[in-house]
Amino acid sequence: MELKTTQIVVIIQCVWSVLGNTHSHGLPNIVFLFVDDLGYGDLGCYGHPTSSTPHIDQLSRNGLQFTQFYAASPLCSPSRAALLTGRLSPRTGIWPNVFLPESSGGLQHNETTLAEILRVKGYNTSIVGKWHLGFGKNQQYLPMNYGFNSFFGTPFSHDMCPCLKCFYPSDPCFNQCDLYYTGCALFHNDRIIEQPVDLTKLEDKFIQKATDFITTNAVSKTPFFLYYSFQHTHHPQFAGHRYRNSTLRGSFGDSLAEVDDSVGKVVQLLKDVGVEDNTFVFFTSDNGPSLRNKHRGGNAGPLKCGKGTTYEGGQRVPGIAYWPGMIKPGRSMELASTLDLLPTIVKLVNGTLPRVALDGVDIRDVLFNSGKSTRESFFYISPYSTPDYPIYAVRYKQYKAHYYTQGSSNTDFTHDPDCPETHNRTKQVPPLLYDLNQDPSEIYNLNLDPAYTDVLMRIDDIKREFEASLVWAESEIGKPTDTALEPCCAPGCSPFPSCCQCHTSNKLLFLPGL
Amino acid sequence: MELKTTQIVVIIQCVWSVLGNTHSHGLPNIVFLFVDDLGYGDLGCYGHPTSSTPHIDQLSRNGLQFTQFYAASPLCSPSRAALLTGRLSPRTGIWPNVFLPESSGGLQHNETTLAEILRVKGYNTSIVGKWHLGFGKNQQYLPMNYGFNSFFGTPFSHDMCPCLKCFYPSDPCFNQCDLYYTGCALFHNDRIIEQPVDLTKLEDKFIQKATDFITTNAVSKTPFFLYYSFQHTHHPQFAGHRYRNSTLRGSFGDSLAEVDDSVGKVVQLLKDVGVEDNTFVFFTSDNGPSLRNKHRGGNAGPLKCGKGTTYEGGQRVPGIAYWPGMIKPGRSMELASTLDLLPTIVKLVNGTLPRVALDGVDIRDVLFNSGKSTRESFFYISPYSTPDYPIYAVRYKQYKAHYYTQGSSNTDFTHDPDCPETHNRTKQVPPLLYDLNQDPSEIYNLNLDPAYTDVLMRIDDIKREFEASLVWAESEIGKPTDTALEPCCAPGCSPFPSCCQCHTSNKLLFLPGL
Repeated sequence: MELKTTQIVVIIQCVWSVLGNTHSHGLPNIVFLFVDDLGYGDLGCYGHPTSSTPHIDQLSRNGLQFTQFYAASPLCSPSRAALLTGRLSPRTGIWPNVFLPESSGGLQHNETTLAEILRVKGYNTSIVGKWHLGFGKNQQYLPMNYGFNSFFGTPFSHDMCPCLKCFYPSDPCFNQCDLYYTGCALFHNDRIIEQPVDLTKLEDKFIQKATDFITTNAVSKTPFFLYYSFQHTHHPQFAGHRYRNSTLRGSFGDSLAEVDDSVGKVVQLLKDVGVEDNTFVFFTSDNGPSLRNKHRGGNAGPLKCGKGTTYEGGQRVPGIAYWPGMIKPGRSMELASTLDLLPTIVKLVNGTLPRVALDGVDIRDVLFNSGKSTRESFFYISPYSTPDYPIYAVRYKQYKAHYYTQGSSNTDFTHDPDCPETHNRTKQVPPLLYDLNQDPSEIYNLNLDPAYTDVLMRIDDIKREFEASLVWAESEIGKPTDTALEPCCAPGCSPFPSCCQCHTSNKLLFLPGL
Repeated sequence: MELKTTQIVVIIQCVWSVLGNTHSHGLPNIVFLFVDDLGYGDLGCYGHPTSSTPHIDQLSRNGLQFTQFYAASPLCSPSRAALLTGRLSPRTGIWPNVFLPESSGGLQHNETTLAEILRVKGYNTSIVGKWHLGFGKNQQYLPMNYGFNSFFGTPFSHDMCPCLKCFYPSDPCFNQCDLYYTGCALFHNDRIIEQPVDLTKLEDKFIQKATDFITTNAVSKTPFFLYYSFQHTHHPQFAGHRYRNSTLRGSFGDSLAEVDDSVGKVVQLLKDVGVEDNTFVFFTSDNGPSLRNKHRGGNAGPLKCGKGTTYEGGQRVPGIAYWPGMIKPGRSMELASTLDLLPTIVKLVNGTLPRVALDGVDIRDVLFNSGKSTRESFFYISPYSTPDYPIYAVRYKQYKAHYYTQGSSNTDFTHDPDCPETHNRTKQVPPLLYDLNQDPSEIYNLNLDPAYTDVLMRIDDIKREFEASLVWAESEIGKPTDTALEPCCAPGCSPFPSCCQCHTSNKLLFLPGL
């Protein structure tokens, strides 16, 4: 007899109701809920007027909502590399910009990821969703090579393939997709099981796999690390039929509603299978909102500019930590970053930190004791940063100094002339200086006020010291591209790329477990 | 024996704990918590990263948080007139701009205010705080002439008088005040009891008076209407010594923290004296943030521009309705306005609506039944509106059409070139069109998209119909000014205006009751 997941959940609930809470106080489970291009101002609980995010809002009400939490980069690939390694992109070679389907580079195998550290500690590790840290020859840069026991997802953003329909039953996508690449590929481990993937059913599959993974590990009492990396809310927006026209906010709102539902399902499942009070959940985004897609992109709330820029809108993102009984509900204005998650979690599980330069700090005191962060500074690296133009901006305590400013095509539509791509790299002498506690929107430049001379000098020192210690790895993204490297489920087929079409039966897709 | 307020509160709590909840299900008490120049993005619960507003956030969590709530005007005097009359400023003559200390005009006595309507129903009515609807000859435009049984507060904004110290013990104010006027006057009913008023102790006095008023009425089981009209957070920022440097957000944050504390005290008092479940509390602001005061001004969050403009930042403000047991906690995205409070409350108390054109609608269904608002449109009147340039913008359902746009000196510092005063009145043909549900920041103009031609035509019709019905009263603000009209506690003294100095003993100030 084969049990369905729902049946397993009911059985576990029954057992729990009889035995009570018997969790082992052993290693905590780790769940990352990582959304794509979600801006600081996109959630109801962060002030968006028309977003419907009741489940994330509840997570925030019952968890710790960070108001000064930073993605490590304003762009996808470098941000994700930093999340998993605790290291800024120059160190990992994930610069400049992002990986493309034909990229030959990827995250180097000598980098140590959080998944690898946790697997050593006995964790079952899985990524569900978008990867975007390389593909390469012989799929050498897929997640299975970085400590993940399983992978169910896509290697890239879904605009890097011909996305033809985005909403049920057959509505076309509104935004530009790269039609010249192979179809969007859905991987199960190292195998393409659907190409091109049906976006309107993708999130359904993701949540099903995440459900299976959590349930299986709860049953076997195995500590687990789930990296749930949403394809949403990157453009083009898509959603399953239940979410079509389900919100006031249009296609972005519908996409976000699908995320919100999955977040609610994950949190409810953790409760149902009895591991809620032994699981550390962290919800955040890889970077700020894409403002080139007009109302189909996100919103930075009160922050300046968005994705691709080193203004606050590019890197300050929602951050919610949740762990009933361990994390006291509230708001934290402490400085923290995705860079801090690796060192914090490694300390939490008494794991071994990699013997490399790390850019994160241990924020357990902030999370569990309402304490102060030991992070005093944050370094903003642009997608355009190079060894010659390394640090664009430095935050020190409440102050931020911009040494270089530059717009981005990802932020082409705003009222602010500083945001679009037409704003070329500009050296700021003296650096623009803002007090972000009093001026989160970066409007009131203080650099000519003598009262701040000392602050600027201190920031100069910090920057100089950091740059002197920063070793730039060879650019992985700059390595030669090769069309033959693109994911294709029918290698050698013709005519390429349209011939890359395969579909596994639904039965295969829904095998229990990963 | 004279009882102190605190003693009375304790006695009432004792009686309540014995008798339980015995409220009469009679006329509900009404409390307006009306903040000055508080922007859409200024509260923690509306997304500000560094504001500390725990009590207002709690009010929001336990109440109904509106996300599309509009002040009737982007400026003080017209907004306040509309709050009390349910009528837009052209009808009441409160145009253009605001009243000054030497203004001879004021809200006309033939206008019917909410206080008058409620007093007829047996309410005790009081305003604590700022008035700003005129002063005039023989103080004819003070609140006692508009249905308020008592007035404890100031006639104008505190920048319309020489504000010399703003923080304990003697810190000067940072912003410009009008040094050529008489000192800021604190009134008790029709008498000046302190001039110039000590701003650092003002909020202490306000909350004490509000406490006395609520307590007295609870004891006597008299239904009451309290219009708590904060002097905060208008510039220059000030606060009592307990609030100095109490927040990350600087002087604005300190001022806001004092508001937050008073809100907490009012709500706690309503509970303590046993009237919480028979009191309708509404928290909101008169207009958007003042962006000419740099980091000492407010924040519009994701909204465009601020005070003085008819962009969203000028008029969309926080709006929180609170009534335990009657109003279900949650968020409402329904369209509503301060204009709606009068008709709603009049219906609620079965009062008599004035026989004049009203611009508000009854929103009881939104408040008490999670229903839809009957408000389909909203008309934006600029501080620069005149009979020749009447309606600047129209909201119809989710759409907003700008017929005229204009910046304001109140919004001089932003990144957006549309906001400052240098943006002169500009006729927009065709009107700029935004979908505010999908684009709350008013970035993506739709007016050239043929798909929206019908929407624009519909809005044209609505505007034409409204303008045809709009009768402009004579401008009260345009009436001649006269220095001799300024508030002065020592009439005829010399040298004017510095001679206007009087201080009543603290004993007199703290007589129980108003």
